[in-house]
Amino acid sequence: MLIAVPLNDRNFQEGLKACQEAGADMVELRVDMFEKLDVKRIKNLIEEVHKVGLKTILTIRSEKEGGTHIENREELFRELSPISDYTDIELSSQDIIPVVRQAVKSSGKKLIISYHNFEMTPSDWILREIFREARRWGADIVKVATKANSYQDVARLLCVGHQEEGEKILICMGKMGSVSRLAGFAFGSVISYAFVDEAVAEGQIHLREMVRLRSLFYG
Amino acid sequence: MLIAVPLNDRNFQEGLKACQEAGADMVELRVDMFEKLDVKRIKNLIEEVHKVGLKTILTIRSEKEGGTHIENREELFRELSPISDYTDIELSSQDIIPVVRQAVKSSGKKLIISYHNFEMTPSDWILREIFREARRWGADIVKVATKANSYQDVARLLCVGHQEEGEKILICMGKMGSVSRLAGFAFGSVISYAFVDEAVAEGQIHLREMVRLRSLFYG
Repeated sequence: MLIAVPLNDRNFQEGLKACQEAGADMVELRVDMFEKLDVKRIKNLIEEVHKVGLKTILTIRSEKEGGTHIENREELFRELSPISDYTDIELSSQDIIPVVRQAVKSSGKKLIISYHNFEMTPSDWILREIFREARRWGADIVKVATKANSYQDVARLLCVGHQEEGEKILICMGKMGSVSRLAGFAFGSVISYAFVDEAVAEGQIHLREMVRLRSLFYG
Repeated sequence: MLIAVPLNDRNFQEGLKACQEAGADMVELRVDMFEKLDVKRIKNLIEEVHKVGLKTILTIRSEKEGGTHIENREELFRELSPISDYTDIELSSQDIIPVVRQAVKSSGKKLIISYHNFEMTPSDWILREIFREARRWGADIVKVATKANSYQDVARLLCVGHQEEGEKILICMGKMGSVSRLAGFAFGSVISYAFVDEAVAEGQIHLREMVRLRSLFYG
């Protein structure tokens, strides 16, 4: 039951300080949202996070799944994955999964393979296919984040996800999906994402609130 | 998504006031915990609740399911059910269900048929049998409240309950079950129970907190 906070490189230090003070466990470096894509500089940011005792998730979200186009994406993964505790790669980025997986696993780190759908929550059987395919590509953790257009969608994603073996991250995006960010833990979701400055995704909960509620319900 | 608060007849007026101020929707009269079992007096209490605009659940919990022995239980149901918005009767009290059902339905009120297990959460198939049997006995709402000994139990009850048609109340008792009191709404649970004075059951959330969280996650 870990709480991660996505940060970009604007106000990184303030964000990191807020994470530390409020009790986050991990920082997700949303490198696709960075202003500067210098490898050395990003390595330093990862080390800064480790220095204050928090874990890192390296994410360079593809254009297709809500990120931005990054020229040297593959290079960034190759250089940075070996020093980040977790690396998140989209299931749809299959052209580079083998390279990323190699960089992650040969360094003893964990690979998150993720699926995002900002429109809807697919049918149960499609969700199951996504889990299956992500495992086949070598995911240590399968992340499924879908838009909930009803509470029905929230229940479906959590119940399908709960039946899947192995570590996973289950998130329903959108206002109606918000409760999944707290309830997911009971269904085997290992990481929830919160914000410190402003919400990156609709339905996200503020870090301080998340930490308090995790302790209230799971403490 | 209604919030009910169980009250006994000690400090009833203070309790009712707290319910009203904090935004409860319903009061559950736990008649089995009352000091005085006078029909007329209880009728007055039900009317007091209605007067401030809240709904009532009449509950005279049997000894077997966590209540106390009440000599005139059947009479109380016959006299009080017709004026209470909801009446809760245990599935295990089958000797009097027909009488209670008759009193409830002929007055156009709603019948909750409930199952409590303070030790554990039964297997999925047994939970399904409980739902089936409660419907056959004429439940408008099936209430299943079981002890969660793991988060697995929470996920199971919510997922089995979600698959059941018709109105239901899904509660996992105990510390580990606490999140079900908030997350249940997304799985089709229509009523959650909160406390104003002190928790009646382990894992219960304070009314003010419940109202705030319902608005945060479902508002």
